[in-house]
Amino acid sequence: MIAKTAAAGGPTLLPEVLAFTSSLSLDRALIREDLLGSLAHLTMLSRRGIVPQDQARAIREGLVSIWDAVQAGTLQLPDEEDVHMAVESLLTSKLGPTAGALHAARSRNDQVALDLHLYVREQCAEIFTSLTKLLSAILERAEVESSTILPSYTHRQRAMPITLSYLFAAYGAMLARDIDAFSFVLQQTDASPLGVGAIAGTSLPIDRVLVRDLLAFERITTNGLDTVGDRDFALDYAYAASRLLVHTSRIATDFVDFASPEFGFVRLDGAIACGSSMMPQKRNPDLFELVRAKSGAGIGNLVTLLVDMKGLPSGYNRDLQEDRGPILATGPLVRSVLDILELGLSRVTFDKMRCLQAVEQDATQATDIAEALVQKGLPFRTAYQLAGTLVRACQDARVPLAHVTTEMAQAIDARLDDEVLLAARIRGAVARKTSPGGTGPDSVREQLESLRAVVTRTKARVEAIPRVATLFAQLREAPL
Amino acid sequence: MIAKTAAAGGPTLLPEVLAFTSSLSLDRALIREDLLGSLAHLTMLSRRGIVPQDQARAIREGLVSIWDAVQAGTLQLPDEEDVHMAVESLLTSKLGPTAGALHAARSRNDQVALDLHLYVREQCAEIFTSLTKLLSAILERAEVESSTILPSYTHRQRAMPITLSYLFAAYGAMLARDIDAFSFVLQQTDASPLGVGAIAGTSLPIDRVLVRDLLAFERITTNGLDTVGDRDFALDYAYAASRLLVHTSRIATDFVDFASPEFGFVRLDGAIACGSSMMPQKRNPDLFELVRAKSGAGIGNLVTLLVDMKGLPSGYNRDLQEDRGPILATGPLVRSVLDILELGLSRVTFDKMRCLQAVEQDATQATDIAEALVQKGLPFRTAYQLAGTLVRACQDARVPLAHVTTEMAQAIDARLDDEVLLAARIRGAVARKTSPGGTGPDSVREQLESLRAVVTRTKARVEAIPRVATLFAQLREAPL
Amino acid sequence: MIAKTAAAGGPTLLPEVLAFTSSLSLDRALIREDLLGSLAHLTMLSRRGIVPQDQARAIREGLVSIWDAVQAGTLQLPDEEDVHMAVESLLTSKLGPTAGALHAARSRNDQVALDLHLYVREQCAEIFTSLTKLLSAILERAEVESSTILPSYTHRQRAMPITLSYLFAAYGAMLARDIDAFSFVLQQTDASPLGVGAIAGTSLPIDRVLVRDLLAFERITTNGLDTVGDRDFALDYAYAASRLLVHTSRIATDFVDFASPEFGFVRLDGAIACGSSMMPQKRNPDLFELVRAKSGAGIGNLVTLLVDMKGLPSGYNRDLQEDRGPILATGPLVRSVLDILELGLSRVTFDKMRCLQAVEQDATQATDIAEALVQKGLPFRTAYQLAGTLVRACQDARVPLAHVTTEMAQAIDARLDDEVLLAARIRGAVARKTSPGGTGPDSVREQLESLRAVVTRTKARVEAIPRVATLFAQLREAPL
Amino acid sequence: MIAKTAAAGGPTLLPEVLAFTSSLSLDRALIREDLLGSLAHLTMLSRRGIVPQDQARAIREGLVSIWDAVQAGTLQLPDEEDVHMAVESLLTSKLGPTAGALHAARSRNDQVALDLHLYVREQCAEIFTSLTKLLSAILERAEVESSTILPSYTHRQRAMPITLSYLFAAYGAMLARDIDAFSFVLQQTDASPLGVGAIAGTSLPIDRVLVRDLLAFERITTNGLDTVGDRDFALDYAYAASRLLVHTSRIATDFVDFASPEFGFVRLDGAIACGSSMMPQKRNPDLFELVRAKSGAGIGNLVTLLVDMKGLPSGYNRDLQEDRGPILATGPLVRSVLDILELGLSRVTFDKMRCLQAVEQDATQATDIAEALVQKGLPFRTAYQLAGTLVRACQDARVPLAHVTTEMAQAIDARLDDEVLLAARIRGAVARKTSPGGTGPDSVREQLESLRAVVTRTKARVEAIPRVATLFAQLREAPL
Repeated sequence: MIAKTAAAGGPTLLPEVLAFTSSLSLDRALIREDLLGSLAHLTMLSRRGIVPQDQARAIREGLVSIWDAVQAGTLQLPDEEDVHMAVESLLTSKLGPTAGALHAARSRNDQVALDLHLYVREQCAEIFTSLTKLLSAILERAEVESSTILPSYTHRQRAMPITLSYLFAAYGAMLARDIDAFSFVLQQTDASPLGVGAIAGTSLPIDRVLVRDLLAFERITTNGLDTVGDRDFALDYAYAASRLLVHTSRIATDFVDFASPEFGFVRLDGAIACGSSMMPQKRNPDLFELVRAKSGAGIGNLVTLLVDMKGLPSGYNRDLQEDRGPILATGPLVRSVLDILELGLSRVTFDKMRCLQAVEQDATQATDIAEALVQKGLPFRTAYQLAGTLVRACQDARVPLAHVTTEMAQAIDARLDDEVLLAARIRGAVARKTSPGGTGPDSVREQLESLRAVVTRTKARVEAIPRVATLFAQLREAPL
Repeated sequence: MIAKTAAAGGPTLLPEVLAFTSSLSLDRALIREDLLGSLAHLTMLSRRGIVPQDQARAIREGLVSIWDAVQAGTLQLPDEEDVHMAVESLLTSKLGPTAGALHAARSRNDQVALDLHLYVREQCAEIFTSLTKLLSAILERAEVESSTILPSYTHRQRAMPITLSYLFAAYGAMLARDIDAFSFVLQQTDASPLGVGAIAGTSLPIDRVLVRDLLAFERITTNGLDTVGDRDFALDYAYAASRLLVHTSRIATDFVDFASPEFGFVRLDGAIACGSSMMPQKRNPDLFELVRAKSGAGIGNLVTLLVDMKGLPSGYNRDLQEDRGPILATGPLVRSVLDILELGLSRVTFDKMRCLQAVEQDATQATDIAEALVQKGLPFRTAYQLAGTLVRACQDARVPLAHVTTEMAQAIDARLDDEVLLAARIRGAVARKTSPGGTGPDSVREQLESLRAVVTRTKARVEAIPRVATLFAQLREAPL
Repeated sequence: MIAKTAAAGGPTLLPEVLAFTSSLSLDRALIREDLLGSLAHLTMLSRRGIVPQDQARAIREGLVSIWDAVQAGTLQLPDEEDVHMAVESLLTSKLGPTAGALHAARSRNDQVALDLHLYVREQCAEIFTSLTKLLSAILERAEVESSTILPSYTHRQRAMPITLSYLFAAYGAMLARDIDAFSFVLQQTDASPLGVGAIAGTSLPIDRVLVRDLLAFERITTNGLDTVGDRDFALDYAYAASRLLVHTSRIATDFVDFASPEFGFVRLDGAIACGSSMMPQKRNPDLFELVRAKSGAGIGNLVTLLVDMKGLPSGYNRDLQEDRGPILATGPLVRSVLDILELGLSRVTFDKMRCLQAVEQDATQATDIAEALVQKGLPFRTAYQLAGTLVRACQDARVPLAHVTTEMAQAIDARLDDEVLLAARIRGAVARKTSPGGTGPDSVREQLESLRAVVTRTKARVEAIPRVATLFAQLREAPL
Repeated sequence: MIAKTAAAGGPTLLPEVLAFTSSLSLDRALIREDLLGSLAHLTMLSRRGIVPQDQARAIREGLVSIWDAVQAGTLQLPDEEDVHMAVESLLTSKLGPTAGALHAARSRNDQVALDLHLYVREQCAEIFTSLTKLLSAILERAEVESSTILPSYTHRQRAMPITLSYLFAAYGAMLARDIDAFSFVLQQTDASPLGVGAIAGTSLPIDRVLVRDLLAFERITTNGLDTVGDRDFALDYAYAASRLLVHTSRIATDFVDFASPEFGFVRLDGAIACGSSMMPQKRNPDLFELVRAKSGAGIGNLVTLLVDMKGLPSGYNRDLQEDRGPILATGPLVRSVLDILELGLSRVTFDKMRCLQAVEQDATQATDIAEALVQKGLPFRTAYQLAGTLVRACQDARVPLAHVTTEMAQAIDARLDDEVLLAARIRGAVARKTSPGGTGPDSVREQLESLRAVVTRTKARVEAIPRVATLFAQLREAPL
């Protein structure tokens, strides 16, 4: 306990209080970010003459040796309130009072904000990588499934015939919006908080812009009181994750349903299907069920953070430390879902015959009939009613709409002629919806093309995100 | 009931089922958006020859007369499932079967998506207006309070002396991020869903880009199956509102506390202070308490939407209708809080003497002493310990740190000389923190300047948001 | 504005502040409870001599005439901050200063707590009524569906054959726990808060036990400071509703799935099935989708309340007023779902043949084979492996397990003899699970019996809940 | 992987899928419950002749040796999907195929339900213990603080004078309701799920009632399909925890405020007050801030569970596994908060003088004046206005209400005579509120008495809760 009480000369904390208040068990996950932030701070302090060069050099050696121990997996952190004090304590045991120079013009309030900004930025890069991998896999799959016909659903009732490519393009569109949401997170996070001290800035002649440059942030935060009390970037991050996990829960529901014997649209490879401890015949889609379920944890994390922040006085309150659980859980949660979904989809085979039968047995081309009538000049609602009558006649006669005869149609209305009935052919119904966003092959091709552009853009973006290890490697060699 | 059952020739819905499933009581709030969307759709259908010009003209007259009745407050909507069917029903009673031409190449699935996109865009404009009004008021206040000194707080303990301008700049920084979040909402909402039909597009020769242009959206949505099942823009909207309301809850907590007799920092004007039905002496900050409390409704709305969407199959599900409550509640909720906060802050007077005393009685300049020692070459941690010893000596002697004498200081350590003690002067402590984000007057001026730029930018942005009434006025005169 | 400011002699509130802070638009729903509470309070004040009898008689007449106007639907409430002040204002305009006697020994803090306790108690009675109606309907249905065989599902894969009675008994078991949860709500609500005044009690010689008796509460609350700041009963109420709505969301998902053409287990009566505005062939289970979706609003309400209460100082804070939205929404939400579900289930027909086929085509009796082997002395895991091998052999040969031949079985293992194979007969598999909680007919009969007892008990309980109208009728005649 | 796929003869799961789906990292916390449940199940199987006695004896030895290894901290669990399979795998490596006899008439679906029921029951016992400890400490403190006078607060404004005993009695009343809520959890959890198998029961001649007796549950669950898909007891548990943590967040807010220099009501012992890494003068109430913040995690857990369950089909779905995080987090979360709060309160000293001054400087006895006038026959509202006028006169004259002179009062109204003015004496104002729930000493004594009775009852209840270790000790010696 360097700082909290001993430093202030008072009695030390009770062990129960230290155990309750310490965040070390969680924030040791931030040690790389903490070391990087300290190294950037130190470099600035040295260049500004606030810490003499020789002291700075010694401290840098200390930081580098801790980093190397982290990378080697050999680091032992002392029991402290948090990762920041644990690092300071390590340095002090190596360097004595010199170590104390590092904390000039810095408070744990801005330090932890920096660590978290760096961490969320790093996680965004990882999430983008998983997102583009999944999106790419979906696009590849969409390519090869362009002739797989299946029903689309509204109200879990068969609606209109589509291709599997079209369905995958829909999944892709959701994921593209997730990339938007995490881009917003990244943009919001892209500000260096360091240098605002505890709450009001510092009287020492620091250079916040230099630190920002060393850490490759876009900007610095504008007001210290706001900065130390702000966790908006963490909320944004938890929100983007929740939204994404709601998307994946929906994809997962599709596959749980598709894998049921009632749908029978897909077969799960044995290597991803789980069995039952009691029922030997089972082939269960546990993977997709768990993907669906993970949305709960995502939303729970978001709510935890929102509740935590609600009604706090402005400035720093220790309540903010409770951000650690949700922030640290979010990245692994999101990435595990994206990665397993990619793997899961690659091990799923569609039963094309079964999918097609589902379309053929039903009347999902009814709208096409109605639209063919509109093309002949009927107001839509009239056309809609005629098509409805035809569908019911087919249902009564137990004839699939695709097989309706001219006689049946003409018996209802003369305008239901052969040209109109052509619209009931299934592949034609799919192909004819050529408007943008529709199922027509060119339309789908454009959809996939635009998603491919998203992948390309996002990969470029990931490349451009400054990474912790790279920055540290640069800084350990930088002039002091 | 035009469409749901009569049109399909089946029995009509039970009244209990209609009552349970109807969204009309809520979505009548969308009627202006619905009429605008229908007019744009009609214009496109006419220009593309899908609806003959004379029919189009008649339908437009119908839509315009409904719009005028809405504006005049004289419209009576028939009991229907939703606003879309209510409008179609009104049109049908005026025009007969011709009215049925309007629904060609359209489903209620893409229609309601359009209405909601238009609505959220409109609300964003309103929210930006309230946000810039509040932010401007805060900036003006910050100008005039640059010499009001008060403590900043961490852990609800006095931390460092600041000016009120600095505190207001912190509030401003939060609101600036809210503008970012609603800008993201706007960007996500800025896509025209119309033309994807029920789920798979349409075989009619529509022109989605024309509709987009008529409605002044930036782009069209990419995939129909995704479009009709997507409520991300609503989630984004509810999230941005939650985040904003957490911010305002924090500002409100500050003022509830400041208004307490213990703080005594502010006095509420009688015209905003509430009394007690039992205790005649009370002067209660109910306004601020309710602002704090409204965060609950905001977060509840967000959770409602997230839960609603969780685990739904892809495509359209009627569950989406439950978006209506949260979406329609969000705008009024957010705006009422922003507007009342602006009014409330304008009726609050700071007790400058009381604020200053709070600083003087305490030791909030301790860090300044430590930093002055650092400037003399001590490592920060050593300086920090010396300053801590000095503070405790003052506390034991019941002398405010600002009044510490050279003798007291020198008795502790020779390095605590007069130059160092200068740092304990309060206004100096505030002024000396010249780093960006600090309390120094130039720094604060820059903060306010950058917020003023945000106001300017946002006002320009609001001007550029296409509004429902303007677009309708254009379309009622546009060529068919 | 009687009390808030005029009474204290200060300036009146700004209209914007009144509009923002007034709860009248919501809490006019509490007027019957408010009048009842006032009448009980008045009776006590009169009997204790705090209000002279003649004044008490006049005030009672005033209260009664307002009640009668409420019942007649003719009451106009003046614009006030809340329903309490609106009533006081009405009384004052009738009686002059005498009206002011009623508020002795009372604050709006304990008054609103009383209103809400009375209201939640009343709603619990209504919810119990809807719950027992639905539960009774489910039990009746279970009676007549005891020979309908269908698969049960784990992981949305067919698991074991069951009867429809058994499935309905499962729904019944969930609802029985909802009755438990609302019983807890009722128990927690069953305390009279009146008489604790604003926060600390009163120096007037009141009799809280008398008020409790007049209002038929079980007990009085114990501590005033706690009482005025407590909304646990509202949280309990919102929680019980959320849990119930999660149950009904699960039942609804079953029926959305069952109604899909892929399952084809149920057919929706046309009077409850909704159509599509674009696709004439649709027969959509909107009713069940909306039941599923309503869980979102329930959970949102709970979160709103929890967030509202989080971190408030003890005692009364105006934040509590934000309880009004969730509390008033909960009862109608829950009852509408229960009632529509009862109606919906009554309009659903099971396709027994289709249900049976789903069982016959699959291998849901595999566990029965394994258990038959255990009965012969094999360790379960060995038996399980043998049964698994048999199932796979059937699948490879495309023979339903129910039709496996002795030869096929013996080719795998001699212990798979005819006696064991008997276990694969479907109705036998259902009947043989005679353990409590199993599918055997006696077991199911017992389950239904115990649920019937729950219905009976709950009906008796509802009878015993004191109702607002009854209590008011008693009090208007009671001695003063 | 014994059961999932190898047992069914299929290919094994991919390692990524096993890693994603395994719950072992979490549910190893359930191993004691799992062993106890298995031992009870085994005892029943043996007594019913389903497993031969010698095999049963061997399996029991295996279970006992694993238990002993758990207690000794030496157990190594193999990598498996979950704790159940890990235990079965351990047994199999010891006993070979005999181990496979244990899983007869059992599925992991009912097994995990049993483990969780046992676990939640155990945790309730622990939570009751922490609750009664905290409640006892509060009651003891209340005893000794009966003459400490401080203001009560409404709207964070001083309301009426109270004693500290009264405030502590309010905290006690909240905690007493938490005991109610956890009693409901216990009651809901008190049912044995074992014996319903995977979903539909079993054809083996088991005895569920015997298992229930061995495990000391009150009852057995009624329907298998419901049982395996039910997590209501977990929701109840997470809800009770959320409600409790909202209570403790409110107590914490009081103490954060009381510890501020503005209130100055309490002084934190140095052993619980935290320092600042930058500001040497700080003495921060981090402990209370973190208690306040923990409500976020509690509510987040509840939401996670509710979202997880929403919309699942009936029966077992793997989604249920995601209950593990919230369930296992809840007990430690709740107990750590209760325990640290007890410790924290014991290290807090009230500054009686400062507390009294806060009352004396204000007009918190205004209501007492008004009530004294009512006692003289004035209608309350008239009395209230007179008292209000007096308060304002005092404020204008800067005279505390307690020191108002007869002259000042008489100048306002003759009825403000000396007898009435007596009511302004502070200790008298406290003592005079003798109604139940009020601040009068007898009333407070009764409140504390009734809370003491709650403690006694709860301690007795804890004693009566069957504990895992005790039951296991009994069963390892029980006849087979």
